[in-house]
Amino acid sequence: MSFLDLLIGKPLANTEERAEQIGPIQGIPIFGLDALSSAAYGPEAALTLLIPLGLLGLHYIIPISAAIIALLLIVYFSYRQTIAAYPGGGGSYTVARYNLGARPSLLAAAALITDYILTAAVGISAGVGALISAVPSLQPHTLSLCLGILVVVTIVNLRGVREAGLVFMLPTYLFVGTLLIIIAGGLIRTLISGGHPAPVTPLPPPPPVTEAVTYWLLLKVFSSGCTALTGVEAVSNGVKAFREPAVKNAQRTLTIIIFLLAMLLAGISYLVKAFGIVATEPGKPGYQSILSMLTSAVFGKGFFYYVTIASILLVLSLSANTAFADFPRLCRAIAQNNYLPHAFRFRGRRLVYSYGILTLAILTALLLIAFRGITDRLIPLYAVGAFLAFTLSQAGMVVHWYKKRGPHWRKSAFVNGLGAFVTGITVCVVLVAKFVEGAWITLLFIPMLVMFFGFVRRHYHYVRVQTLCKERVQPANPGAPPLAVVPIDRWSRIAKQAIEFATRLTPEIIAVHVDTGEHSELLRATWERWVEAGFTESGRPTPELLMLPSPYRFIILPILQYVLDLSEKHPQRRIVVVIPELVEGRWYEYFLHNQRGRLLEWSLQVRGNERIFTVSAPYYLGEHPGSGHEPKLSKRV
Amino acid sequence: MSFLDLLIGKPLANTEERAEQIGPIQGIPIFGLDALSSAAYGPEAALTLLIPLGLLGLHYIIPISAAIIALLLIVYFSYRQTIAAYPGGGGSYTVARYNLGARPSLLAAAALITDYILTAAVGISAGVGALISAVPSLQPHTLSLCLGILVVVTIVNLRGVREAGLVFMLPTYLFVGTLLIIIAGGLIRTLISGGHPAPVTPLPPPPPVTEAVTYWLLLKVFSSGCTALTGVEAVSNGVKAFREPAVKNAQRTLTIIIFLLAMLLAGISYLVKAFGIVATEPGKPGYQSILSMLTSAVFGKGFFYYVTIASILLVLSLSANTAFADFPRLCRAIAQNNYLPHAFRFRGRRLVYSYGILTLAILTALLLIAFRGITDRLIPLYAVGAFLAFTLSQAGMVVHWYKKRGPHWRKSAFVNGLGAFVTGITVCVVLVAKFVEGAWITLLFIPMLVMFFGFVRRHYHYVRVQTLCKERVQPANPGAPPLAVVPIDRWSRIAKQAIEFATRLTPEIIAVHVDTGEHSELLRATWERWVEAGFTESGRPTPELLMLPSPYRFIILPILQYVLDLSEKHPQRRIVVVIPELVEGRWYEYFLHNQRGRLLEWSLQVRGNERIFTVSAPYYLGEHPGSGHEPKLSKRV
Repeated sequence: MSFLDLLIGKPLANTEERAEQIGPIQGIPIFGLDALSSAAYGPEAALTLLIPLGLLGLHYIIPISAAIIALLLIVYFSYRQTIAAYPGGGGSYTVARYNLGARPSLLAAAALITDYILTAAVGISAGVGALISAVPSLQPHTLSLCLGILVVVTIVNLRGVREAGLVFMLPTYLFVGTLLIIIAGGLIRTLISGGHPAPVTPLPPPPPVTEAVTYWLLLKVFSSGCTALTGVEAVSNGVKAFREPAVKNAQRTLTIIIFLLAMLLAGISYLVKAFGIVATEPGKPGYQSILSMLTSAVFGKGFFYYVTIASILLVLSLSANTAFADFPRLCRAIAQNNYLPHAFRFRGRRLVYSYGILTLAILTALLLIAFRGITDRLIPLYAVGAFLAFTLSQAGMVVHWYKKRGPHWRKSAFVNGLGAFVTGITVCVVLVAKFVEGAWITLLFIPMLVMFFGFVRRHYHYVRVQTLCKERVQPANPGAPPLAVVPIDRWSRIAKQAIEFATRLTPEIIAVHVDTGEHSELLRATWERWVEAGFTESGRPTPELLMLPSPYRFIILPILQYVLDLSEKHPQRRIVVVIPELVEGRWYEYFLHNQRGRLLEWSLQVRGNERIFTVSAPYYLGEHPGSGHEPKLSKRV
Repeated sequence: MSFLDLLIGKPLANTEERAEQIGPIQGIPIFGLDALSSAAYGPEAALTLLIPLGLLGLHYIIPISAAIIALLLIVYFSYRQTIAAYPGGGGSYTVARYNLGARPSLLAAAALITDYILTAAVGISAGVGALISAVPSLQPHTLSLCLGILVVVTIVNLRGVREAGLVFMLPTYLFVGTLLIIIAGGLIRTLISGGHPAPVTPLPPPPPVTEAVTYWLLLKVFSSGCTALTGVEAVSNGVKAFREPAVKNAQRTLTIIIFLLAMLLAGISYLVKAFGIVATEPGKPGYQSILSMLTSAVFGKGFFYYVTIASILLVLSLSANTAFADFPRLCRAIAQNNYLPHAFRFRGRRLVYSYGILTLAILTALLLIAFRGITDRLIPLYAVGAFLAFTLSQAGMVVHWYKKRGPHWRKSAFVNGLGAFVTGITVCVVLVAKFVEGAWITLLFIPMLVMFFGFVRRHYHYVRVQTLCKERVQPANPGAPPLAVVPIDRWSRIAKQAIEFATRLTPEIIAVHVDTGEHSELLRATWERWVEAGFTESGRPTPELLMLPSPYRFIILPILQYVLDLSEKHPQRRIVVVIPELVEGRWYEYFLHNQRGRLLEWSLQVRGNERIFTVSAPYYLGEHPGSGHEPKLSKRV
């Protein structure tokens, strides 16, 4: 307990919760982090695919970036409207559920879940990528660094950081600030040099041209670049967190975020072309991220360079945090509709949805391990989920406007319709372009998740129906008293106590002993002396001592079989198996004794029926030497 | 169950056991494997230490080998006598226990346990070393290969190989045969060439001389070479397995084993010097074992070379098997004296002591992992245990002869006394020479093991005394009926069944519900309708429904605390906690429901006292829709 306290903090009471109300200044770090940080891996993902074209590839980066920025603007106008329409929080799942129905909403939910796992994985791996660019000797430790950061993020989230805004503010503004300075510096150098600036720190030599350009390649570049759009929907989920006028504040925040992101994307792609920066092979020695090369080209590898890299690392790791903030809330919403295990509904000791956080951490870790923590390998899986969620959410908005049919509804429906159309096309493009590289994994995972939702819902429904009770309790249930079965290994206080408890339940007691040839004879002798004599004295029917043969030396199986046979022989009677158990003082002492009591209880539960009850009669070492039942609260933990 | 059947075979009945009676032909592979196989790593261990002396080091190998062979002969004569004196099997533990008392016997037991773990680890790692010499590309996979072989040996032993003799015979004789042929071939080549034979396959270049010879170094070389003696005691453990005249047959077997081992040691050390073979650095690329170099020097890397390497690999892996055969029997003997957990006494489904086998496998795996599967790093830990056991066993024999004082007892006592003295000296030499390299681990482990024996024995004794029962059972125990506490989450058939069971036990029932604000109101309403009405109708006291507050959202803790408080308030009464449990049809369905019932049961056991009993009232989904209690044996597993 105390270790848990130390690691994730003391439990918080329900009353300790408080709402925070934020404006755009705090809103940008909290909701914009995910979107803004994608400026660090979106262009990189696109440029990596252009490596085979060598320096020639740079000709294509500006038109492709323009297309991506146009897409970004369309999505922006769509989400502005969603914010106004759903001031209570309009995540894709909610919007799809209200407007499109259960099935599409589950598809949106599955897409979002996939997307959040990838956000966490890509954020962390891209952050580590930035670190490796600055300190190349860390390259062999890529995966360990990724998992280390994941553990820290998980613990921080289990603690439930209340002042998240403050923690996020500094790195976010540092990130945006340094990047804007780099872009400004780069533009000035380009102007001065007449369009052909010389890098301050020499760049790695451009790779040789190994392929010719094809439309197919450009399509793939566009698809990879689209990952820069992920995270744009975050503001629409959290309108409630803004201070009044909430909708206006949220819209203003979204506007600033999109404006900054567009600036960063445009600036980076222009300068990459001007300086002639070609991506390096990720996961190989000598790898350097685009932003690292750009920064060192504009300002050299000085103090400013390391500040920039540090802010990139921080922002990317924190963007993983965005996934940790939203994923558990999403899972809770899904679990409330019985589509996910109910455990996702319960808030843990720190008022956070611990199961959701842990689930996300485990899935992210698996993903990082499977892809060795290399961003470039994760990118093809990404974006499918995000754009599918965009599409469903925007399509839901169209239905929303149609249902309401307020003034100017056609205009609103058109804006969202355009958003749905464009993002829908993008889903198809990304799927086709990235299918072989990894989009197929997403395409397989999302329907499996939807099927899982269905399975969970059906199971809960089944249990609910099966256990529904519309009958009165019948206190004095008629029929014979239960039969008590007491498994006994050797004669001891433990056995005595179990038999005495059994006499409270019923006059019909059967003691069973599995005959392994060890102390059967001794048991029979003590039985006559200590048990039968006691019963005869008080004039009660003597319990039977039954020796069960066990040619294969099994202990549990013969008892289990006996109880099942007995239950079949007496179909109207209950059977109570009283299991004498020795409780040890210290956990390691359990290794010195067999855990057959537990095992028997468990196998009776699994193989038994509902007329078979198990009682565990605990015996505590070191308490009461006689029978002077001293009430003593033991302090064991 | 069926998977276990497939992996380790169907259960065997007690009656299926049968004794095998063997002669020297089968005895040599079964009991001699461990000893003979040490010819493959003993000389290697000694020569590795001579690497810094370069070619000069070879001058010292023959005198050191002579000393080791002399030691071997002394030990041989000692054990011949032990065999005659303990025809029922004279392991070091037994001999020490009968003659020296409990403490020395525990020391011998701890030494033997250490030795067996090392036998298994060294055998496997040396076998893999031979394989790597033949196929150098496997070098990076050393550890995986070691663990793979360990898993195979473990499974084979859990199956309980009955025809072990046959399996062992071929590789053992192949090993001895090929080595003898190599020695003969090498001797002939040496004779023909006039003492300076040229190797058929060129040897790796000898390393440069980096150190001067010191007595200290030669002492270390001797200590490492002494590992060649491990396994000599095996025959004395198993005299009973021989056919009549058992003692004669066992002695004859021992004689042949020692003769062969001495021949191998002498031959290998002579040829190593003649051919100028210097050891290569183990665990580094380019490593080759001594026997691999010797074989290829004498006959080249042809078919015969690979047959030899294969037989070495097999014999070394099987020598690990010797540890697997003896370790569980030793542990059983110790457990029968209550010095080890009783689980070691029970024979598993295949009539073998499964716990012992698994324990050895786990400890060996840990050792292999810690030392990356490199024989040379394990060697310093080895031999201490074996020679300590030798010493104690021989010292015990001296006492034995003194106690009996038969004819010629002085002569017998002298032989064993010489053995005890020489091996005792060797223990000290090995300890001193190898202390820093790893013998300190053994020196730490053995006393810890002895302390553990003491702890286990004291604990069993304590439990035995505490639970000793010399009182009659008191069937109709006086006093009030127990109090029943029924934790209820929501109203359902599961809850109904638990309450009905509680009414059998006592009229005083308290239902407790932890108020998390979820469905407390609903529960109160249904409670009046379905429970209270039922009780009022039958004129019984109505059970109380208690709402337990839980500001920190804990579920188990408030119930546990309530039960403990109740128990303190009623120090004379028993409390029965009836836990309604939903039993799922399939294992994965457990993830969809909380396991609070189990957790509550467990925490009541740990924190409770012996007046608190728990009853698990199972509810099976899909059975009885009404209450027409259909007796149905479920087929779940």
